Amino acid sequence: MSKDRLEAFSDGVIAIIITIMVLELRPPSATTWAALLPLVPVFLSYVLSFVFLGIYWNNHHHLLQAIERVDGRVLWANMHLLFWLSMVPFVTAWMGENRFATRPVATYGFVMLMAGFAFFLLEHTLLALHGQDSRLATALGSDFKSKASLFIYLVAIPLSFVASWIACALYVLVAIMWLVPDRRIERVLTP
Amino acid sequence: MSKDRLEAFSDGVIAIIITIMVLELRPPSATTWAALLPLVPVFLSYVLSFVFLGIYWNNHHHLLQAIERVDGRVLWANMHLLFWLSMVPFVTAWMGENRFATRPVATYGFVMLMAGFAFFLLEHTLLALHGQDSRLATALGSDFKSKASLFIYLVAIPLSFVASWIACALYVLVAIMWLVPDRRIERVLTP
Amino acid sequence: MSKDRLEAFSDGVIAIIITIMVLELRPPSATTWAALLPLVPVFLSYVLSFVFLGIYWNNHHHLLQAIERVDGRVLWANMHLLFWLSMVPFVTAWMGENRFATRPVATYGFVMLMAGFAFFLLEHTLLALHGQDSRLATALGSDFKSKASLFIYLVAIPLSFVASWIACALYVLVAIMWLVPDRRIERVLTP
Amino acid sequence: MSKDRLEAFSDGVIAIIITIMVLELRPPSATTWAALLPLVPVFLSYVLSFVFLGIYWNNHHHLLQAIERVDGRVLWANMHLLFWLSMVPFVTAWMGENRFATRPVATYGFVMLMAGFAFFLLEHTLLALHGQDSRLATALGSDFKSKASLFIYLVAIPLSFVASWIACALYVLVAIMWLVPDRRIERVLTP
Repeated sequence: MSKDRLEAFSDGVIAIIITIMVLELRPPSATTWAALLPLVPVFLSYVLSFVFLGIYWNNHHHLLQAIERVDGRVLWANMHLLFWLSMVPFVTAWMGENRFATRPVATYGFVMLMAGFAFFLLEHTLLALHGQDSRLATALGSDFKSKASLFIYLVAIPLSFVASWIACALYVLVAIMWLVPDRRIERVLTP
Repeated sequence: MSKDRLEAFSDGVIAIIITIMVLELRPPSATTWAALLPLVPVFLSYVLSFVFLGIYWNNHHHLLQAIERVDGRVLWANMHLLFWLSMVPFVTAWMGENRFATRPVATYGFVMLMAGFAFFLLEHTLLALHGQDSRLATALGSDFKSKASLFIYLVAIPLSFVASWIACALYVLVAIMWLVPDRRIERVLTP
Repeated sequence: MSKDRLEAFSDGVIAIIITIMVLELRPPSATTWAALLPLVPVFLSYVLSFVFLGIYWNNHHHLLQAIERVDGRVLWANMHLLFWLSMVPFVTAWMGENRFATRPVATYGFVMLMAGFAFFLLEHTLLALHGQDSRLATALGSDFKSKASLFIYLVAIPLSFVASWIACALYVLVAIMWLVPDRRIERVLTP
Repeated sequence: MSKDRLEAFSDGVIAIIITIMVLELRPPSATTWAALLPLVPVFLSYVLSFVFLGIYWNNHHHLLQAIERVDGRVLWANMHLLFWLSMVPFVTAWMGENRFATRPVATYGFVMLMAGFAFFLLEHTLLALHGQDSRLATALGSDFKSKASLFIYLVAIPLSFVASWIACALYVLVAIMWLVPDRRIERVLTP
């Protein structure tokens, strides 16, 4: 089974998710600057999710470059990841339209936690297929960032009930942590 | 005529169908947990269809790997399949928004039956092109699962008028049956 | 300049157009069969456009297989075709939601005429690039079907003001004419 | 890291943006020609953005053909470009639905300025990676058109507060300037 079609399908789904999210940004009927103001939280929420989906696409790209083959389990681990990513437009809209209210912010964190966990599962399904001596195993190493992200989400969700801006700040922290490109895999792949 | 563009186009259409379905999951205006409750059937309906579309993509992937060429008839058999798959978001929304009411559940089964039949037709159009001695013929074998699925749908549709949960349980049964990866083709392709 | 990315982009746009059209098919709030009745013309309108877009994808596929290279003019001739195809969901919805009323039916014919003309232009831009002795020139031949389609649209548009079903019947005629796979190019490509 | 998946992902996102824009063109409920009249500005706005996105796709295609490799910085410079392009449907709808009113026209110019700047950044990220002696450096040359476009947008935005049609005329001017295919890169690539 080839990995090319898995890549193409995942690219397609992520490209569509990232693009239909923006449909939530409905143009106001008035043409004043004031009419744009209520859209600011929706816009910020969109920017955050755009960056997260960009990170997932980026990491997915890196991950699949380090592997040689896929099997049925990998296909479904990948589908599971795409499922949680497909929930992102829903929570992005709920969070943005309600100006980062407590429960939407907590739900956003939950979807991010599940997507992060699904990526972790995909990595380990691929590891199980390629073995501990594979290029992939060397490339992933201790996988510190993935584990740290899951931990931060687990902390952020209850904290959103204390103050939702703390949870949001933690989500931004995860994004920044990943925006630094993942040199682990690049280092191993470079001869 | 190459099979690559057929794969790419089918991947594109399935990726879009699977993603626009989630647009039905409109965020509520309130931010209470109670506001999410009416979305639960819509969500469950989405999960079921996501899994079905994942299965179709998966099986389509397997099927096209076992073939060598396509012709005009195959292109249209494939279009016919994509047509019925494109009906999935409509019936998913109708079923979810009406809390699995009788007629929407029966209609969902009808669309699934037609999609299953379209896949069956595609398989047999490909078989006619490649011959009974082809790798594809060996790979498909008696095609038990496809026939069983069609039979279960045919039973589920009238049963949805008795109790819609029975039909839903049968749909879930079909999904589980297919989630077990299709080893027939993999077995033949592996040297 | 390679033709691969042109194919991929066109496939993507056609796949999206064919899929977002179905978003017009909004599930009714009632769960009776009667509630589905007003959707019948919308559904028929969708089926017609699905078939037309399938034909365009199919013919586009054949056309690009017969060529060797593309240039800037070809890219824009292709964009022009995609533009008119992107108008299809609009006219499909207008026609379906108004039960095949005169003006929507005439406008549908106009968009089909423009799309057909854009395809004709694309063919001739490619011919000008590849020359009259090229495989493409042999493959296209007298290009009877394209010219006949344009003629039928030109006749159907005024006739829709007499009776819109006549125009619709002519649109179906064009579709049937094209559903017969285009053997011209296949014949030349086969050694 | 390969440039193929970057191309495929960008193609996907641009194809989706160009297509969902047309969803703004809602069919009227009446079937008179008069009912289509209010859609004329929305249609013109759509045509302008369709052409701009076509130009971006075209230029992106040319740019990526002149390069040999991508790195993490390039991936993010590309994501940044896609982000601003994803804002195009929003400003297109706001401008079209408000018949080219001052503030929507100025905002349209701002998004175009940012997209143009993002393309400029992407070019220079690629230049930094490939060096001043690369084929890309020769191909881009003084990059006059990119700089001129940014300058025209900078002039058009304040002018839209004088008269919005002046700004619109300037946007059309930029589009025409780019519609002339970019021969700089083609010239260098041709042996």
